[in-house]
Amino acid sequence: MTAIWPDRDALCLLTDLYELTMAQAYWRQQRNDEAIFSLFFRVLPEQRQYAVACGQEYAAHLVSELRFPEAQVARLAELKQFQPEFLDWLAGFRFTGEIRTVPEGTLVFPHEPVLEVRAPVIQGQLLESLLMNYINLETLLASKASRVVDAAGGRPVMDFGMRRMHGLEAAWRGVRAYRVAGISGTSNVLASRDFDLPAQGTMAHSYIQAVGDERQAFLEYARLYPGTTLLVDTYDTLAAVDKVIGLVREEGIEVGAIRIDSGDLGALAKAARRRLDDAGLSGIRIVVSGGLDEWKVAKLVADGAPMDGFGVGTEMGSVADAPSLDFAYKLTEYGGEPRLKNAPGKPVYPGAKQVWRHHDANGMLAGDEITGIDEARDGEPLLRTVIANGEPVIAAPDADAARQRLRGELAALPEPLRGVQRAPEPYPVSLSERLETLRQRTLDALSR
Amino acid sequence: MTAIWPDRDALCLLTDLYELTMAQAYWRQQRNDEAIFSLFFRVLPEQRQYAVACGQEYAAHLVSELRFPEAQVARLAELKQFQPEFLDWLAGFRFTGEIRTVPEGTLVFPHEPVLEVRAPVIQGQLLESLLMNYINLETLLASKASRVVDAAGGRPVMDFGMRRMHGLEAAWRGVRAYRVAGISGTSNVLASRDFDLPAQGTMAHSYIQAVGDERQAFLEYARLYPGTTLLVDTYDTLAAVDKVIGLVREEGIEVGAIRIDSGDLGALAKAARRRLDDAGLSGIRIVVSGGLDEWKVAKLVADGAPMDGFGVGTEMGSVADAPSLDFAYKLTEYGGEPRLKNAPGKPVYPGAKQVWRHHDANGMLAGDEITGIDEARDGEPLLRTVIANGEPVIAAPDADAARQRLRGELAALPEPLRGVQRAPEPYPVSLSERLETLRQRTLDALSR
Repeated sequence: MTAIWPDRDALCLLTDLYELTMAQAYWRQQRNDEAIFSLFFRVLPEQRQYAVACGQEYAAHLVSELRFPEAQVARLAELKQFQPEFLDWLAGFRFTGEIRTVPEGTLVFPHEPVLEVRAPVIQGQLLESLLMNYINLETLLASKASRVVDAAGGRPVMDFGMRRMHGLEAAWRGVRAYRVAGISGTSNVLASRDFDLPAQGTMAHSYIQAVGDERQAFLEYARLYPGTTLLVDTYDTLAAVDKVIGLVREEGIEVGAIRIDSGDLGALAKAARRRLDDAGLSGIRIVVSGGLDEWKVAKLVADGAPMDGFGVGTEMGSVADAPSLDFAYKLTEYGGEPRLKNAPGKPVYPGAKQVWRHHDANGMLAGDEITGIDEARDGEPLLRTVIANGEPVIAAPDADAARQRLRGELAALPEPLRGVQRAPEPYPVSLSERLETLRQRTLDALSR
Repeated sequence: MTAIWPDRDALCLLTDLYELTMAQAYWRQQRNDEAIFSLFFRVLPEQRQYAVACGQEYAAHLVSELRFPEAQVARLAELKQFQPEFLDWLAGFRFTGEIRTVPEGTLVFPHEPVLEVRAPVIQGQLLESLLMNYINLETLLASKASRVVDAAGGRPVMDFGMRRMHGLEAAWRGVRAYRVAGISGTSNVLASRDFDLPAQGTMAHSYIQAVGDERQAFLEYARLYPGTTLLVDTYDTLAAVDKVIGLVREEGIEVGAIRIDSGDLGALAKAARRRLDDAGLSGIRIVVSGGLDEWKVAKLVADGAPMDGFGVGTEMGSVADAPSLDFAYKLTEYGGEPRLKNAPGKPVYPGAKQVWRHHDANGMLAGDEITGIDEARDGEPLLRTVIANGEPVIAAPDADAARQRLRGELAALPEPLRGVQRAPEPYPVSLSERLETLRQRTLDALSR
């Protein structure tokens, strides 16, 4: 049978080779002091104002279950780079450290740790590729979708992206991120079942073409699916709207909505709305789709186009404007000593950290401060322990809680930072004096 | 245990809901005449000159194995949109039609069918989402990677993209597409085993930071991995090169290469090359990485920078310049009659087709012609049957054969079309007169 994805057991080999060769080198030299690794991004994509942290709790749970089963260790042995004693050590691997993350659905900004690992360095190193891949995808998709949802101003946004997303897993797991972002439904049947989001869909042009007669196609479809959405742009959009009106009057079919998938969506929606209203069918909703992204959605909303919902696919699913985030996973402490890489223009801050989120008197977000983990501040500490001694200490990730959290944070975000264009000033994030001093001292020590 | 991907059995539900509701509508009305569906793209991304067809043979094999197991049918029933008799029909589903594709590794151009399905319309419709998702991802990655490999002018290109690709499946399956594109190795351990591409990797900055002393880190690593690649840009790149030279002379370590991951890669590589050569170490290779794409690789090569290999990750893996292709899957014939959607500026050509590739006297590619399936031409017919009566009639997809095919086609592609900038003239693709006439006649019939 043709493989579509690896065995669950093989998760341990979905990693970059150097994680394993470094692990063996540490192991060989008995260098296995406690290390801190910090996962964060430095720069937001152009026009972005925030990212929505997503995937990190799920990834932390995966880490707690990570093992190197015998069959996988045997495959590693084929590479002829690993010593039998190290392979034995891998076979007994389990994560014993601590993982702290911000809650899923939290807005995050440059330099803020989304996740920190405290563990013997070999363990922390072995997690790098898996954590980055997992968190990159879900944060990427949740961040993009959140912008689309926000631009739609309360109108439902549906995920139609499966065909253009990067593989079946991305299209499936993406729906979890979409649910956090506030998407209302998905066309992806399995994901709708697995992640408990309504399955939605209408009909394709091919159906109307196959039936041949558009009116007949509408009639049959609406009889089979009362309240369905009829696709009206196969031949002539407004003529098709008239056919829908005629069918409702003459045949008594129940139509929930029409969908317009091409042409000047705003103008066509307005004209369709008028015809439907004039016919007394103001209950029939109008859904649009076709090449939509947050900018197009915002423009349609600003233009007062009478849309009741948006179907969004390619741009959201492939994250067309920024298909990756520049996440880094950096060693910031080893054996109790701060460690840094000297990269001009790419500062890393030493040690384990906390992020404090401040609210003003009206409850609006007023800025964050990144501090060392042992500095106390007023405000909301964002990072909390999700894995301790290798075991989960919070419940399984809850997409609804994350969605609520995101909704609250967005509502408290000052207006210019919610827009689809970049605000004149970014959200204020400061670094504690102690962290700056420690960084400078560490760099000075490096250059000695 | 935390799920990372669905059961193999659930492949049938990884589809857009409307494929299933349309299928039920066809089934209910006993509309199940033979249909032709054609999968193609209309427009190349800016700066692209070709796409490399990939994934279609693999996807065709999946189709031949597609079933709706009982447990999955039960999940569909929960949606309350499907009648028991239709669900029974689904439970007995197997594909009985024909699939024709161009061979994997073939260069394809706008409007050329990459794949055509001939099957009862319900079956053809049910395959849409799966085929599009599968072929989009692999064609996307093979097309991008082919440009990077070509730009590298024979120097090896390594895939370092796992952490920034869209999920674990994309990073894993991407390696199959990369192998077709001519990538030399991958850092992804499992993919290297499953798709038989060398596993490659060096060390990360974190290793040097954890050891603390750079010289000591190099010494230990090279002793453990003779012939390894040492990462030299953690603190001061050229100072690190001097440390490598000193270690080779004083400690006799074996170093295969150095890797430079930041800074002015071209200037640093030249300076490093000089120091190594002056020390009589011209056998130590120089590998560069860090934000590379085909344009940066081409520039480094054009500048004569002494690179022996490129590690490419984020830009290639997320396909940063064009993270989706505009693939369409269109009904072009039903019950023996041509069918089209009337979309201004988005022509679809009716019926089953063939693509004929012409070579000139020197064996160079001289242009393609798209014809109806029953028109004969001189030249190479690109589409051939891979599934007949629902069963594979070719061997399992062979990445090596595809790689050879691509290599041959690129060697025969006129020079301006191989460059990283868009050529003044696109590759010539014409449509047969009969196809144009048939399209016009079909459109005329639509507007009657």
